[in-house]
Amino acid sequence: MKNRIHIIIVAAGKGSRFGADMPKQFVSLGGRPVLMHTLSRLRKVFPDANFLLVLSKAFVEYWTELCGNQGIDSPRIVIGGDTRAESVNNAMSALRDSGIKDGDVLMVHDGARPVVPEDMLRRIYDAIDGGAEAAIPVIPVTDSLRLLGCEGGSEVADRSRLVAVQTPQAFRADVIATAYKETFSPTLTDDASVYQSFTGKAPMLVEGSPLNIKITNPRDIEVAALYMKLR
Amino acid sequence: MKNRIHIIIVAAGKGSRFGADMPKQFVSLGGRPVLMHTLSRLRKVFPDANFLLVLSKAFVEYWTELCGNQGIDSPRIVIGGDTRAESVNNAMSALRDSGIKDGDVLMVHDGARPVVPEDMLRRIYDAIDGGAEAAIPVIPVTDSLRLLGCEGGSEVADRSRLVAVQTPQAFRADVIATAYKETFSPTLTDDASVYQSFTGKAPMLVEGSPLNIKITNPRDIEVAALYMKLR
Repeated sequence: MKNRIHIIIVAAGKGSRFGADMPKQFVSLGGRPVLMHTLSRLRKVFPDANFLLVLSKAFVEYWTELCGNQGIDSPRIVIGGDTRAESVNNAMSALRDSGIKDGDVLMVHDGARPVVPEDMLRRIYDAIDGGAEAAIPVIPVTDSLRLLGCEGGSEVADRSRLVAVQTPQAFRADVIATAYKETFSPTLTDDASVYQSFTGKAPMLVEGSPLNIKITNPRDIEVAALYMKLR
Repeated sequence: MKNRIHIIIVAAGKGSRFGADMPKQFVSLGGRPVLMHTLSRLRKVFPDANFLLVLSKAFVEYWTELCGNQGIDSPRIVIGGDTRAESVNNAMSALRDSGIKDGDVLMVHDGARPVVPEDMLRRIYDAIDGGAEAAIPVIPVTDSLRLLGCEGGSEVADRSRLVAVQTPQAFRADVIATAYKETFSPTLTDDASVYQSFTGKAPMLVEGSPLNIKITNPRDIEVAALYMKLR
């Protein structure tokens, strides 16, 4: 991996949607917080990357203590915003301030995806290394879908034309940093769409993994623990 | 439950998409085949229902032996077709031949959904009992989605307008049986769309359950076993 790699881990959620006391990224998964699994998995594949961890201000002290207790070096911390887009935007600003070079690669990953497979991480990186400006992992949609209409109506949606999008999403660092600067809006939910609205080009679609689940409720913790054992 | 209930369990898959020796509905889940779990869960909630089990011809003897070994009465067996729609259509023909009465309720369930929650089954039934002609269980789409275009292009899809569709799907028996007779096509994947194309009306959408997974690969067996323990 010859390019410098920046990795933004987005973990600024305050946990309002999670049915536990803690935000999902801090819930225990086999004895360690979800976010520690996420970090250590990324560090294993990209040991020399420049990590930025986006946290809610309320959890910075808690995280720092966790790292101290477990003997882990925390990445540089960036304070998040009210939405995911604002959180990523804050990290982009910090990166621009510290200098991005031609050829740098930037990846953005959800802190709540702790079991992202290593081979998948390499595939995403390789796409950018191979010349793509943007690459995102996708998997087929396995559920049958319906499109909701007005007044309770609905109709079958053609799932063969849809894919489910995961993270990490990877970019040429200079391009995505500029895209965020020029076209940022707090309601954007997806980094690839910031890239696309700025460049007018679609990202390369790379094979994701069904194992790469996002922890969104307590049940998912059990599934993630299972997937860690399966591999 | 005052109405007579017919339940078609669709389990005619030959297993070509499943990475094991057995079709998914016969794989062991905690020591018993998936399909036995499905059947016993439905029988628990609807003990007086008239069950029709759709099997591939190649597995009828195997299933009959399984039932004998486990001391379970098999429902009436209907031989499936090459597609799911053909399998359901064969069961509809058998039902029409044996007589459907006004007020009968018909449910169609995937044999590979063994952990369907009991309260969800009751909700679906209650919708028809309450006057709906068709009711299907749906859950929100949690993944971010992209819509594929031509030549490698894609764009963000609005998942807030989409829901994932599960089974059982429930109908007024006379309406769905007629709909299959009049508008059947072997490529239809969804019973509600047969109803909709015949009547021009959308089915009632009822709350499904994220636990109600469909077994589509070996990993799902582990998740199903986990979900059975969670509840």
